[in-house]
Amino acid sequence: MADLELMRRLALEEETKILLVVLDGLGGLPMEPDGLTELEAARTPNLDALAARSICGLSTAVAPGITPGSGPGHLSLFGYDPIEYMVERGVLAALGIGFDLQPGDVAARGNFCSVDTETGVITDRRAGRIPSDLGARLCSKLAQVQLPEVEEIFVEPVKEYRFTLILRGRGLEDGLTDTDPQETGVPPLPVTATRPRAEATAELLNRWLAEARAVLEEDAEEKGHAANSCNLRGIAKDPGLPKMPEIYKLRCGAIATYPMYRGVAKLAGMVVLPTGETIEDEVDTLKEHWADYDFFFFHVKKTDSRGEDGDFNGKMAVIEHFDQLLPDVLAQEPDVVIITGDHSTPALWKAHSWHELPVLLHSRYVRRDGAVTFGERACMEGGLGHIRHVDLIPLGMAHANRLAKYGA
Amino acid sequence: MADLELMRRLALEEETKILLVVLDGLGGLPMEPDGLTELEAARTPNLDALAARSICGLSTAVAPGITPGSGPGHLSLFGYDPIEYMVERGVLAALGIGFDLQPGDVAARGNFCSVDTETGVITDRRAGRIPSDLGARLCSKLAQVQLPEVEEIFVEPVKEYRFTLILRGRGLEDGLTDTDPQETGVPPLPVTATRPRAEATAELLNRWLAEARAVLEEDAEEKGHAANSCNLRGIAKDPGLPKMPEIYKLRCGAIATYPMYRGVAKLAGMVVLPTGETIEDEVDTLKEHWADYDFFFFHVKKTDSRGEDGDFNGKMAVIEHFDQLLPDVLAQEPDVVIITGDHSTPALWKAHSWHELPVLLHSRYVRRDGAVTFGERACMEGGLGHIRHVDLIPLGMAHANRLAKYGA
Repeated sequence: MADLELMRRLALEEETKILLVVLDGLGGLPMEPDGLTELEAARTPNLDALAARSICGLSTAVAPGITPGSGPGHLSLFGYDPIEYMVERGVLAALGIGFDLQPGDVAARGNFCSVDTETGVITDRRAGRIPSDLGARLCSKLAQVQLPEVEEIFVEPVKEYRFTLILRGRGLEDGLTDTDPQETGVPPLPVTATRPRAEATAELLNRWLAEARAVLEEDAEEKGHAANSCNLRGIAKDPGLPKMPEIYKLRCGAIATYPMYRGVAKLAGMVVLPTGETIEDEVDTLKEHWADYDFFFFHVKKTDSRGEDGDFNGKMAVIEHFDQLLPDVLAQEPDVVIITGDHSTPALWKAHSWHELPVLLHSRYVRRDGAVTFGERACMEGGLGHIRHVDLIPLGMAHANRLAKYGA
Repeated sequence: MADLELMRRLALEEETKILLVVLDGLGGLPMEPDGLTELEAARTPNLDALAARSICGLSTAVAPGITPGSGPGHLSLFGYDPIEYMVERGVLAALGIGFDLQPGDVAARGNFCSVDTETGVITDRRAGRIPSDLGARLCSKLAQVQLPEVEEIFVEPVKEYRFTLILRGRGLEDGLTDTDPQETGVPPLPVTATRPRAEATAELLNRWLAEARAVLEEDAEEKGHAANSCNLRGIAKDPGLPKMPEIYKLRCGAIATYPMYRGVAKLAGMVVLPTGETIEDEVDTLKEHWADYDFFFFHVKKTDSRGEDGDFNGKMAVIEHFDQLLPDVLAQEPDVVIITGDHSTPALWKAHSWHELPVLLHSRYVRRDGAVTFGERACMEGGLGHIRHVDLIPLGMAHANRLAKYGA
């Protein structure tokens, strides 16, 4: 339905401004079956007042029952079909550490692991979750493993046993399998090409792995640690998404405190605006750049973090914090405001979940419904009904008078 | 959206159990425009109490306005797109009589008919609806018509003028047209192949038909009855559906009193559990096998039968009967319970209909809605909104914590 080609054909340049606020992991559940969700329990006078002047509903990020990772959750918010367009793990890992990934780079998520040096089988896929400082030292050492055919190889620490590998140079291709067999008691797998043109890159990666593993084995024996090998997963390039400014004729600015969300926004063609660590900083950034963009992606991270911690009150507090700043945001007078999340993260579930997202769409041109608070149950009865994330930008564009009529 | 490939990628093994209760033909209509439906009129304290602890909605079996047969109605409940996956009439006919159809068998629905022996044109497509005992005798006689190229040919009576023909042997193919021209005054059509590899099977069937018709003509003349010929429809093999245990990583058990539903469950890869004739028998079967399966398909037939009879009170009584047994079912403590039907069969309509199905989804992790009774009108305002049958298993899997996150 939300067809990017249709958007490209119909999009109009206009003076209007659209603000998409993503409260990460916003959707919740009651801790007791008949209780309130985090959003329902939070004191949110400003969100409630806005909901009363908006149309509300529930939105599915990917498909019924599907729990989205942050990549698909955001791609669908930006209007990309999250089944058709996929950002692989390696690319997200590179974006997540703020690595300036270039088109053509091949990125992989790396894991240090333990192997039995006699038999070669994996004994621990996470090398006993080695501390981050050891992981960082091993990355520095592996960064010295370069190949003459590759312009540059980067090995960047992530956390504990996790790292990111990036190969930069001409002619690198993706379509490559993981080396992690996802079980112990078997040896790592070779990288294999799933299409002929990736064969040369598979060969390069296998050569790099052989050298890197030799370095790790020697270091592990010498220094007495468990990380004597490594594996690669989700090896991929920037997927080359069609860019939002071209599809929607919108100058797009992204405001997010975490690298991964800045990275996904960049893949979608947004300009990533420098900001600080707090929601206040983000609001300041919004004000500062208000004149320069037509569309703002405004991302609040900590709703998700508190949900993942199982911290119901903490998540509630982040929502309340945003609510207090909402009047400052609305003072910019956006023509269209959409507030939702990329996926649910109920504190009860302590992880991303499949539950629909409450969504609020405000503009002068909405048909208001009966919702006078912003919450899951109020949205269940909202005038938008049950929609899909990929429909949100088209709806936002329409309410901003930025879509031409379809057909005569 | 409900993509079996996606399910296959994301499905996880877990300890949780999912129960899918199908009250066949559940959806109804009021007999008077402003009255209650069968489900609304039935006294169902247990279903109502469960609805109050569940999320409810209305579900479309195939597509808006489409009245499903039992095949598509169940395939979509099991997560198969009922447009993409089709079980043909011949296969359903074989399953409906409890025939143990093997992969590779070719099955056809057969009709005895009357032809003018001078001109060969059909004069009655149903041979004057001959009695079942005559049909059975003719089947025994036709079963003696064997072909040397076919390992075995079965001719099984169904009812009155209807029979099932099954060819078993190597190299049989489907992709074959019906011989029934669907009108009188014209001769039967030959079986033709719709793809080259089915040509040999078409030739075999035409040869069998010629011999069978000769037998029938002689018998009809000798014994003085109208069934002097026959036609074949819906000639097909087991469609080779992807199997539910492989797609969903669920051990699937089916409990149904009627052969056709056991047959469709078997096509989907479920283990069909022996049971008796009553709902009580089915509940006993459920209890007995509770430990052995992760997913149960529990089918109640008579809601549909009474609907087809136009027997509003009778259908209500079947619903009430199930309601009384529901506490025994819930005592097994399934993690997820889904209760719905495969299609509507309003007593007012006396046939399958296209109306949406009331559906109830219970788990610890649902967002409860305002529905405190289980009925069409309550479900209209339920928190699931309007969903599709193919989305039900993905939702059940999610609530049972049996789906991995999609994307990083």
